[in-house]
Amino acid sequence: MGVVIPLEEITPENRIEALSALVTEDMDRVNQTILSRAASHVTMIPDIANHLISSGGKRLRPMLTLATAGLCAYRGGGHIKLAAAVEFMHTATLLHDDVVDESDMRRGKLAARMLWGNEASVLVGDFLLGQAFKMMVEVGSLSCLDVLSSAAVVIAEGEVLQLSAANDMQTSEDDYLAVIRAKTAALFGAACEVGPILGQRPKAEIAACRGYGVNLGIAFQLIDDALDYGGTSAKLGKNIGDDFREGKITLPVVLSFRRGSEKEREFWRRTLERGEMADGDLEAAIATMHAHRALEDTVERARHYGAMARDALELFPASEWKAALIDVVDFCIDRVH
Amino acid sequence: MGVVIPLEEITPENRIEALSALVTEDMDRVNQTILSRAASHVTMIPDIANHLISSGGKRLRPMLTLATAGLCAYRGGGHIKLAAAVEFMHTATLLHDDVVDESDMRRGKLAARMLWGNEASVLVGDFLLGQAFKMMVEVGSLSCLDVLSSAAVVIAEGEVLQLSAANDMQTSEDDYLAVIRAKTAALFGAACEVGPILGQRPKAEIAACRGYGVNLGIAFQLIDDALDYGGTSAKLGKNIGDDFREGKITLPVVLSFRRGSEKEREFWRRTLERGEMADGDLEAAIATMHAHRALEDTVERARHYGAMARDALELFPASEWKAALIDVVDFCIDRVH
Repeated sequence: MGVVIPLEEITPENRIEALSALVTEDMDRVNQTILSRAASHVTMIPDIANHLISSGGKRLRPMLTLATAGLCAYRGGGHIKLAAAVEFMHTATLLHDDVVDESDMRRGKLAARMLWGNEASVLVGDFLLGQAFKMMVEVGSLSCLDVLSSAAVVIAEGEVLQLSAANDMQTSEDDYLAVIRAKTAALFGAACEVGPILGQRPKAEIAACRGYGVNLGIAFQLIDDALDYGGTSAKLGKNIGDDFREGKITLPVVLSFRRGSEKEREFWRRTLERGEMADGDLEAAIATMHAHRALEDTVERARHYGAMARDALELFPASEWKAALIDVVDFCIDRVH
Repeated sequence: MGVVIPLEEITPENRIEALSALVTEDMDRVNQTILSRAASHVTMIPDIANHLISSGGKRLRPMLTLATAGLCAYRGGGHIKLAAAVEFMHTATLLHDDVVDESDMRRGKLAARMLWGNEASVLVGDFLLGQAFKMMVEVGSLSCLDVLSSAAVVIAEGEVLQLSAANDMQTSEDDYLAVIRAKTAALFGAACEVGPILGQRPKAEIAACRGYGVNLGIAFQLIDDALDYGGTSAKLGKNIGDDFREGKITLPVVLSFRRGSEKEREFWRRTLERGEMADGDLEAAIATMHAHRALEDTVERARHYGAMARDALELFPASEWKAALIDVVDFCIDRVH
């Protein structure tokens, strides 16, 4: 165990390599479980599930479950099924999100709903959610079931909240934080909390892991929001502007709107509230964001939550698990450069 | 307790009255639980949930959970939350079904998706499903969690199966039975199985209650299918023809297609496979069904499953609970007249 990476070669990619290396064997078992539990005699189910599951997501959430179980010296096998359950909950959310957002693409591939229809995306999401609960029940920890079923409720609540606030330029930074705490951070928190619960650790350690996960989740989402406008670099990459085209009010928008002139506010109202978009609007949006340091400050906010995530782990003694989990915070934030 | 109904006044409605009377107090607690658990600070959630919950469904499934708990002399309080969870699972399925089927109406009111949009229907369904699991976890019986989470998986699988078989006139009676076993009967079975599990009854009694529920569920669905074409009476009532307009292949269609002439088969292919409908087609469909006794025989099939449901309860000694549960079988079937 233990991965040595020369300092000069540290990039966002290998910041997560220490964690990947630590969980390699467990992750193989998680991937096996994911494949076998997405199976069904109704062939449309594995077709759709595997389309998304094999589309190269980072599997960050299940890795966090494995890593916090490792951090807490858990020796059983329950973390494998719980990690798979966490990934299924995430996949189900993506399937339903694509239907709700009417997205055409997901992870650089056509969204499942474009290939199999909205109907199938809704129902296969329900199937995966059911399988997630079934796996949790098999593990048999009522505390873990409580944490994960509560997260399922909070996630759905957050999604509805986001829908109610959609296209509303009145959204404040606090409103927006409430949305991402629910729709993104709750699952990160739950994924990290079940590890120490399985390991029967004291309450303070369970709370610490949850705090790590929740704050990491917020940081992760804020960086995603910044990346959707090209991050802090001036160059534009691929997959830019999805949030803008879908009229999503994310933190870079909230900050730009508040800091902008009346003319700029009218620009945001026209494009995001009324959905009247023209060629060049995305570029104009990005330029306005840079003018108001909205992307830089979104990343600053992410750093704040990243620092909280890091500090949450302070009560654990030094270990390769702890070091790897702290690297993940840097990984999430450094993606933006 | 005990309700005396003069023989001459027995109608489908009062066949369920004995059960309603037996569970009145418990059902009040279930309704309280349903209302409090559909609450959320995100107001769109109770708005949508209550639109459907208060729309006058019979609450047959939660009544079955209460009644089988009563049959098995369960004395705790867990059946209340499980009954509410069963109703939430059912409501979540209805919300997602309406999106999948693109239905405009539900229980004589505009479908939630018509008032709040598909997005909200998907997400509020997810919320209710999450709340259902949370309530099950609070009850704390891993066996009940196993039964209900397995049902959730089977229901979703059945819905996808139905989607794959949609508009396919090759659907056989066995294919169709597999669909309704999964999408309808599994929840009836689970609703009836958790009662004796809570009551810590022997395996044979648990299996008997499940068998009662599954067979009752099949009978219930077959009668629904016949009712959608006006049942066995010649008069046409309201809410007729939804299945036909949505191109659903139900048992009356399967029987009519198999028994029909080549010309009649072409009629079914045109209307249900290719979706080319014209004025008078629904009336022609019903006439063809009557000509081939397809509706009468669908009801006969339902009677067969109803008899199995009744026999499943034979091993229980006589009680007002048992009598009420047997009345429910007659209630489900007699709706057709």
